[in-house]
Amino acid sequence: MPEPKPSFVVTPYEVKGRIDYARLREEFGTQELTDDLKARLRRAAGGALHPLIDRGIYYSHRDLGWLLDRYEHGEPFFVYSGRGPSGPLHVSHLLQFELCRWLQEKFHVPMYIQITDDEKFWARSGLSREETVRWGEENLLDILAVGFDPARTHVFFDSKSIAALYPLAIRVAQKINFSTVKAAFGFTPSTNIGLVFYTALQTAPSFYPSWADGRSVPCLIPCGIDQDPHFRLTRDIAEGLGYPKPALLHSQMLPGLLGDAAMSTTGSREENALFLTDDRATVERKVRNAFTGGRATVEEQRRLGATPEICSIWALWRSRFAETDEQFRAITDGCRSGSLLCGECKQAILPRIHAFFDQQRAAREKVRPWAESTIVTRPPHPT
Amino acid sequence: MPEPKPSFVVTPYEVKGRIDYARLREEFGTQELTDDLKARLRRAAGGALHPLIDRGIYYSHRDLGWLLDRYEHGEPFFVYSGRGPSGPLHVSHLLQFELCRWLQEKFHVPMYIQITDDEKFWARSGLSREETVRWGEENLLDILAVGFDPARTHVFFDSKSIAALYPLAIRVAQKINFSTVKAAFGFTPSTNIGLVFYTALQTAPSFYPSWADGRSVPCLIPCGIDQDPHFRLTRDIAEGLGYPKPALLHSQMLPGLLGDAAMSTTGSREENALFLTDDRATVERKVRNAFTGGRATVEEQRRLGATPEICSIWALWRSRFAETDEQFRAITDGCRSGSLLCGECKQAILPRIHAFFDQQRAAREKVRPWAESTIVTRPPHPT
Repeated sequence: MPEPKPSFVVTPYEVKGRIDYARLREEFGTQELTDDLKARLRRAAGGALHPLIDRGIYYSHRDLGWLLDRYEHGEPFFVYSGRGPSGPLHVSHLLQFELCRWLQEKFHVPMYIQITDDEKFWARSGLSREETVRWGEENLLDILAVGFDPARTHVFFDSKSIAALYPLAIRVAQKINFSTVKAAFGFTPSTNIGLVFYTALQTAPSFYPSWADGRSVPCLIPCGIDQDPHFRLTRDIAEGLGYPKPALLHSQMLPGLLGDAAMSTTGSREENALFLTDDRATVERKVRNAFTGGRATVEEQRRLGATPEICSIWALWRSRFAETDEQFRAITDGCRSGSLLCGECKQAILPRIHAFFDQQRAAREKVRPWAESTIVTRPPHPT
Repeated sequence: MPEPKPSFVVTPYEVKGRIDYARLREEFGTQELTDDLKARLRRAAGGALHPLIDRGIYYSHRDLGWLLDRYEHGEPFFVYSGRGPSGPLHVSHLLQFELCRWLQEKFHVPMYIQITDDEKFWARSGLSREETVRWGEENLLDILAVGFDPARTHVFFDSKSIAALYPLAIRVAQKINFSTVKAAFGFTPSTNIGLVFYTALQTAPSFYPSWADGRSVPCLIPCGIDQDPHFRLTRDIAEGLGYPKPALLHSQMLPGLLGDAAMSTTGSREENALFLTDDRATVERKVRNAFTGGRATVEEQRRLGATPEICSIWALWRSRFAETDEQFRAITDGCRSGSLLCGECKQAILPRIHAFFDQQRAAREKVRPWAESTIVTRPPHPT
């Protein structure tokens, strides 16, 4: 009997179904983030590994070994990540930036952050330009508040940084044709020409330091594996432009509170995500209503145990809210054995989420005075 | 018997064959520039009419009557034209800017000039970015040297002005999809995504003053009729963005010296055009070798006369080199009657071409100190 086709979809514009991540990695043709590579990363980072990597949320890569080779030979890389500003950030967005901040700190490297206010306007018909710009400004404060070093952090806010990005994007756009973006993103003849062009702007930061300095500077992009098609295209054209292919570090999606494949909020699934703008009462309601791996009755759960792998709350513990590996193991074991009930588990995570949100909100006010100064507005040279 | 299909092609990317301009106007669905409208333009301009209009080289329009209505009611317009910098300017390019300068002077209106260094890089695979930027800078000097008023002249040099144009281009691009540009420009799936996007940037200047000032400012675009498809698209989306449709004034092409439909130099038809960079000896050689409407022998020409309408030299007299209407009539009559031979006619026009080139070269040095200051680099507002 043939193996059934997996019932999930993962593209930069759609994530749905119960994702088989090992299979997805095979389909995309990426490399496994092996224990050996993790050990190498740990050594290079000075002995510690970020929980997002250690606990397997970042699980796939392209060319990470090559990047570490070069790093070990004294060639520093830079980290690039981004955000499409369509609304407030939720927890899952911050995780990616927490990993970036960790990389910046441990490897002493520059961070480039792209805010794609143009793309979100082109991709979402319901959003005005004023809204994508305003959300871009709001999101940038939250991202910087994660703890980036202002002296080594550079922001491409697309509409404000276009003078810096455009000369390079012109070169990139010449290497990509309509059939390529059609195949990569599922575009159709009715896709607007902004969105058709956009991937040139998302590619430009990967090459920016190499272009600016006139020498090869390796790039590392931590991203959800759903974003891999964007950067496959970037990697395909890199050599033709004389720049190194960016290395990628792919994460699984943080599942939604309603049990969705990802904490995404396309449509109006407000209850699916924990937003930084949610007040305490809202956070509590969402957590209490969240989908778990629990049983139908307390008695049954005590007897048979629950299933952490399908639980949205366990995914939060795993991502950042379990502070130590011991704590994470205790929660996982308690869940599986039936000694920890879902209500108790939710009660235990709530104060940690509140503390995280409070800390983010306080840090956000501290970055406000210098946030604007991180935005790159001038190109290093005219062509 | 059905009328034969005309054997010519006119698109923004190709001009060939013997163009039937009346028929082309009908195919494109533009309006005839009638004697009534010319008389109105003459009155509004204070009593004189530019030879390019008076002698019928500008022969077609869209909404010119509407523009004059508004002008007569005290609402000034602005003029917009541009240049794709793929090499040195030739005489035909300058004619369009001479008309623009005349409009600026007679109607006391602002002039917007676009230099499309990005588009030329995307459209011509043989040109490097350094070349399109350098030609853009060179061409701009020649254009400004035509005599524009620095206080009322604004240049969009695409790669240098992108910060100013992009916020508006974002809005424009959202209104245009791939099938529209495919139909308008004959693009295919292998067209690069820069060229696909580009029409958004060529459209933005038409709306720029309206967008900047937050009120409707009419736009007049003098252009070769081959450029009409670009601006048809601009006109189609204008109302959806809340801006007035630009009015257009279309010219016939100046024929090439080798008898081509247009003085264009795609391919390596160097001898087809008179470039501003040509020295005197080159100009003389090209004029002496130019295609005319003359007969095979002097005797035959004396007896039967020549045909000015197909002659590349007569087209030059008509465009700007006949200084008065009397002189133009005398040359035309002499040609048709056989009293003026082609050699004599060429000998008579040569000093005028030399004088024009000398004057352009001198004026060019005078604009150099302030040319850069006309380039717009900042947007009026962020969205």
